[in-house]
Amino acid sequence: MAKDMTLMWFSGSPPCWRVMIALEEKGLQGYNQKLLSFEKGEHKSQEVLDINPRGQLPAFKHGNNILNESYAACLYLEGQFKSQGTRLTPEDAAAQALMYQRMFEGIAFMEKMGNVIYYEWKFPEGERHDSALKRHREALTAELKLWEGYLEKLGAHSYLAGKNFSLADVLVFPCIAYVFRFGLSAKRYPKLAEYYDLLKERPSVKASWPKNWLENPQGQDKLKDV
Amino acid sequence: MAKDMTLMWFSGSPPCWRVMIALEEKGLQGYNQKLLSFEKGEHKSQEVLDINPRGQLPAFKHGNNILNESYAACLYLEGQFKSQGTRLTPEDAAAQALMYQRMFEGIAFMEKMGNVIYYEWKFPEGERHDSALKRHREALTAELKLWEGYLEKLGAHSYLAGKNFSLADVLVFPCIAYVFRFGLSAKRYPKLAEYYDLLKERPSVKASWPKNWLENPQGQDKLKDV
Repeated sequence: MAKDMTLMWFSGSPPCWRVMIALEEKGLQGYNQKLLSFEKGEHKSQEVLDINPRGQLPAFKHGNNILNESYAACLYLEGQFKSQGTRLTPEDAAAQALMYQRMFEGIAFMEKMGNVIYYEWKFPEGERHDSALKRHREALTAELKLWEGYLEKLGAHSYLAGKNFSLADVLVFPCIAYVFRFGLSAKRYPKLAEYYDLLKERPSVKASWPKNWLENPQGQDKLKDV
Repeated sequence: MAKDMTLMWFSGSPPCWRVMIALEEKGLQGYNQKLLSFEKGEHKSQEVLDINPRGQLPAFKHGNNILNESYAACLYLEGQFKSQGTRLTPEDAAAQALMYQRMFEGIAFMEKMGNVIYYEWKFPEGERHDSALKRHREALTAELKLWEGYLEKLGAHSYLAGKNFSLADVLVFPCIAYVFRFGLSAKRYPKLAEYYDLLKERPSVKASWPKNWLENPQGQDKLKDV
């Protein structure tokens, strides 16, 4: 099938997961793939650096075309395989506007999530401050409430840009799964939880579910009070 | 012309500038616009919050479609006005891949630039560390070197995704203009400087040049040693 494509990825990384969902949705199974270890620093190997000078994953190649940014890869795949598999961009202008808007709000979501989950990893010990972490947690709460409100407004069984699954879901769902993996309360965020439950049954999502989450179904509780 | 569009913006903000360049390129002059003051906190006014609950600019409306994220607005405008004005997405798959890749690397560029230029604004006094600022400056230097290398590889008179102006330029150029406004050395980054000189003569860029830069042509020197 997709033998001219190669993906190097980490298990459980939202950016990598996005590309895997897009590949599944576009019927591009059978691509070459290599699961690397973040802990072992394998993203800094020459093999990765040859494709991605930033030494980050995903690192993705289609023929000679290189797409290492997850948003770039997903937009490219949708553009190149428009009529193959799921159509990920709605035709209607209003739905398209909402899709793009949510896709890019997803970058703020990811950043705010990362500021809390990776706080210790991002800042050396001497540069950490309770005041900063508190501010980051508050920013994440505000962010999650925004998304909870968006879903509430759209009504039951909605995707992020309306009644059809779109690129907004491909790109933002992995972050939503991630916050639940890190203990987000389904009681406090019922619409996000409902969306998560809907999406996790989707074939593309199931087929690409993080291997390490399958092996170790127990998540963390870092976000339980957010 | 574009009387069904409204843009609220700050002068000199790269995200706002992106949308203005896209509107110019697509021949959508004559849109309603409102220049707001960051210093006066006008982005937190009800008028903005009604369009953008994040209280950020740009805030952009086309009819009832709301696009507040600059990347979202530019992709939407390109999608809706594909054959009007400049075609901002190349047809060729390789050029398209490069365009998407550079567009989204532009987000890392913006972040690293912001970590240095806005350091004092982002972190309260008690949370600032020379070690952190040093690290941010090094990360920005590494980022700028990457882009310098990309341009060098493409050869003279190139745009970011090759021989044609594209969405990559719309989205990344404002950050490149910004680093020079903040004193980046043209000697140390000759390819970036050449690109900057090429783009600043482009009609869409000239027409949308930040008003406050015109009024006050003297920039700052915060990045002179980066």
